[in-house]
This record gives sequence, C-alpha cells and structure tokens, in this order.
Amino acid sequence: MTGHVVALCGGVGGAKLAHGLASALPPEELSIIVNTGDDFQHLGLSIAPDLDSVMYALAGLSDPVRGWGRRKETWTFMEALRGLGGESWFQLGDGDLAVHVERSWRLARGATLSEVTAHLCRALAITARVLPMSDDPVGTRVLTAEGWLDFQEYFVHQQCRPAVRDFMFAGAELARAQPDALAALERRDLRAIIICPSNPFVSVEPILAVPGIRSAMRRSHAPVVAVTPIIGGKAIKGPAAKMMAELGLDVSGAAVAQRYADLIDGFVIDRADPVPAPLPGITFFSAATLMSTVEDRRELARTVLRAADTLVA
Amino acid sequence: MTGHVVALCGGVGGAKLAHGLASALPPEELSIIVNTGDDFQHLGLSIAPDLDSVMYALAGLSDPVRGWGRRKETWTFMEALRGLGGESWFQLGDGDLAVHVERSWRLARGATLSEVTAHLCRALAITARVLPMSDDPVGTRVLTAEGWLDFQEYFVHQQCRPAVRDFMFAGAELARAQPDALAALERRDLRAIIICPSNPFVSVEPILAVPGIRSAMRRSHAPVVAVTPIIGGKAIKGPAAKMMAELGLDVSGAAVAQRYADLIDGFVIDRADPVPAPLPGITFFSAATLMSTVEDRRELARTVLRAADTLVA
Repeated sequence: MTGHVVALCGGVGGAKLAHGLASALPPEELSIIVNTGDDFQHLGLSIAPDLDSVMYALAGLSDPVRGWGRRKETWTFMEALRGLGGESWFQLGDGDLAVHVERSWRLARGATLSEVTAHLCRALAITARVLPMSDDPVGTRVLTAEGWLDFQEYFVHQQCRPAVRDFMFAGAELARAQPDALAALERRDLRAIIICPSNPFVSVEPILAVPGIRSAMRRSHAPVVAVTPIIGGKAIKGPAAKMMAELGLDVSGAAVAQRYADLIDGFVIDRADPVPAPLPGITFFSAATLMSTVEDRRELARTVLRAADTLVA
Repeated sequence: MTGHVVALCGGVGGAKLAHGLASALPPEELSIIVNTGDDFQHLGLSIAPDLDSVMYALAGLSDPVRGWGRRKETWTFMEALRGLGGESWFQLGDGDLAVHVERSWRLARGATLSEVTAHLCRALAITARVLPMSDDPVGTRVLTAEGWLDFQEYFVHQQCRPAVRDFMFAGAELARAQPDALAALERRDLRAIIICPSNPFVSVEPILAVPGIRSAMRRSHAPVVAVTPIIGGKAIKGPAAKMMAELGLDVSGAAVAQRYADLIDGFVIDRADPVPAPLPGITFFSAATLMSTVEDRRELARTVLRAADTLVA
C-alpha cells in the first residue's frame, strides 16, 4: 500500500520508531510531528530535546549506549561551565551545543522553529519531514506534591522523583498547529497515523493538546495506530510507568490504549504481554516492540504499517 | 615602592605581562583595563576575545602551544557546527564556549560587561581587578582597500591579509569609561600606568579612544611606561608589524614610543634592539621583553615596575 504516513512522537523511544518508519518508507511519504512541550530556554539557548532526539535518530547520530544525545560526544563545555560556577544540572554535550547555538541564533534572527528544523534536517541529510507540533511555545508542566514544576525541572533537575498528579501544557490553547503538520493529517492520501511508543502524558498528549490536531486525527479516514511504550509493566526509558502508577492507572499497554480510546483504531502491544481485554473500536496487535537494533526499528515500522493497512475501512 | 598599578592591555601578548604584574603585585594593587574593541556578536553569543585572553592568562588556563584559547581544549562543537552548515570561520573551543555562553546569558539578563567579568574572575579565582575599558559597545574597524572591515572580519576571517590604511573605534565617542577603570587612573596612590606589549592600533588605541581615559592618564602624576610589542622588527604575535609597515611607519619599538609620545614617560625596548634616538620626555629602558615562560612574565613585570619607579618626579 502507498500513501502518506504521519507519525506523532516524543523523544528517544518514539524517535526510534520514527527512524524505522523513515527507513521503511520513501521520504516523501512520511511526516513526523514532534512534541515541543519539553522545549525550554537554558543559559539563553533554545533547547528542543525531542526534535533533537528525532533528528539524531534519523541522521544516525544518536549515542547507542547513553540512550540520548550524540555519539562520540565530548563534555569539555560542561566541565568548563562548572569551573565558572554556571548552571550544570542540564547536561549539554559539546556537539549537541552546536545544534542549540545554531537553532537559538536562527530563532533570534526571526526564523520559525519549523524553518530552523527544516534547515537542520537538510544539513544532516534527513529526507523525511520533521515538524514541530507548533511554532508557538507550549510548556509542559507537571503537578506534584511540591506544586507545578516546569518539565525540565521535574525531568532533569529532580530526576522524576516527585510523584505526579496532573499535567498541563501552558500556552497550548493559544498555539497554532504547525501548518504542514495539520495539512499532513488532512491529506486525502493519508495511509496511517502512527502514535510512536512515547510517553503518553508528556510526549504525545502535548501534541494532542494543540488545537486542531486531535480533531484532524478524528476526522481522518486513515487508521490511527499507537504502539505501546510499556513492556512487561515497565517503560523502556523514562518515567511513563512510574507516572501511570502514581496516577493510579494500570501499568500496561492496555491502559495506554484506553487513554487513547477516542483516537485510535489499533494498538500494538508487546508480544511478551497478554492480549488485553477487548476495547470497543480498537484492534490489538502483538509484535516485538523492543527496538535494540536499527533492524528492529525498521521491522517494527513495517509491522505497524501492515497492522494499519488491515484497518482500512 | 607600593601604590596602585594600572595596566592597559589587549590580547595574548599584553595578557602575558598582565599575568606577570598579577604575580608580582598584591592583588589589591593592580587594575587591568582591557580592550573591548574586538568584542563582537557571533552566532548570537557575546564574544570578548581580549577579556578572555587576560582571564585565561591570569587563571593559568591559556594554551601554551596554540598561543590563544584554553589549554586542554576540544573542538567537538566546531566539528558539529560544520556538520550543520554553520558559520565556522571563527574557532570556538568547547571549553571557551562556556565563557561565551555564560557571559551572553548574563548580559542578556541585564548585567553589565564589568559585572559579568567580575563574576567570571571570581569563579576563576582571579584576584586582580580585570576591567573592560567600557560597558558600552565599541567596535574597532579597519580601513583597507576593500573599505571598512569589522575587526574580526579583518583579523580572523581575512586573516589580516588586506593592507590597513586607517582605524576607527565605532561608538567610542559615546562610550563611558568603565567607572572603576577611570577611578583607578585617578587614584592618588597611583604608582604606575603600564601600557602592555599589545598592538598599538587595535588593542591600546581603542582604550585610549574612550573619553576620559587619555586625559586621566595625562593628568596623572604617576609615570606611564609602555613595553614594546616589536622585537627585532617583528611582532611576537599578530599583525602589529605588518600594520606598521602598511602605514609607512618604521617597524620598531621606537616608532611605537613615538606613537605614544604625548602619553608616556618611559618606554621599554627589547635588549636585542638598539637604543633609539632620544625622544623628548621619554626615558628608554632595555629589557628582555620576550615572555616564553611564566617566570619571564614576572621578571619583565618587575623590570617594568622598577623602571617606572625611577621616573617618579
């Protein structure tokens, strides 16, 4: 089957499937809509962690061991910054800094985040279209016993220790969906919309909170298929499982499927997990969702696309 | 003899003598006024090359081989920036970047260049007072056959290739001298004013172009002693000799002394050079002015201070 595919994704885990889709599809058939709720200003730099994770994955620059940032990274900047008494809670690799500096400089000169992202992708020879969910700022905030925390304060500075109670996406109600992202979701030749195995609360739901995105997905005739970020009651990376437990949810793919119930037609659980109890309107698929190698990514991408293709009305 | 010493200096060569003075004097007896005419904005960062050279020299962080920047530097940022198609004509080391980012961020939040410099010096355990000549922007420009070039365009991008015809210090006439710098020059207990072996045209004269500095130096009862940046018809580093030739000047310490004639009481030439023909009001001293080691710096500092002390009226 052919047609355009749209992927919604956050950082590292989602980026792996986005990379798999990019390697399984012709470049003109894929648009990747990326969460920007984690974006923040740090030391005067505009940092967009999920866009960077996706770019690095697609460009083959991701560090395979550390699980985030760039391969062959060095840390001289951080060491020197600590020597200056600078803020050192957020790790900035020397090579990673080049992206932050180049992005910040272009934004300061008036480019949109989409334009900067397109420029960086061209420079890195990325052919699939990588789109921020919005060019307007949206800031994910996390409600904890200590009150509302900015996402990076919670995620990096406090290392996800505080129990979460709720989330908000500051600015989302006023943010305009990135026009190409919205247009991609409204394409007539849309083959599938894939929700990558990203954190539902802080990676996918910020995208869904941007006005127009959720409704475009619901209007679309194309099947919407999500991939579980939970395997065997655990998240491969990040706080998704911890958050689900703290919110009183079952820590399972099925609970994630439930959360997306108004949007999805299909849900891919890991083959190690039991098939969930039926949910109306959702077809469950079972697959190897752990992506340890680049081949795993492409294989899962193909499986997910085949699953979506079976759901066409 | 005791009393306060003020040093005027530019980048690498001047920074070496500034370091010598800092190691020869108690910290409260030294103020170093640094050229900021080379400062510029690059990739959205506020870069102050001479302030950095002085800080690195005083903190023992200078690279001894390359002659500029930090020791144990890495270059991952530049490599990644080139990979993004970014502007790569100005070399930014990974550790050096920490200073630029920290400075830029503090300036953006409203701190003055003096305040940022004081903060960085404290963090680097520098006890002598390092003062920018002004907190207002002054931009050195170089007139060449191609017209007026910004200093870094001439110095780094074009590697000093165009022949120089004239200089200007844009903004100097409106710049306010840094208050502590002016106060230091006006101290009653001023022992000496030392003009370090820096480029007269683009390191020292920008400082002298800031309103109030030249007149304070002329009013001061303290001896003013300059150290030659020219040894054997050559500059140790940088384009001073090339500029002198292009301007039709004799390439010698004596010609530099002549240029400072209205300001100085003493001038230190290198012991390898012949004693110049007498100049009214200027006493020439002869010393080993090449500073290859840290001991050379302190030794030259002591020699210059002794020379100044002999000139007290």
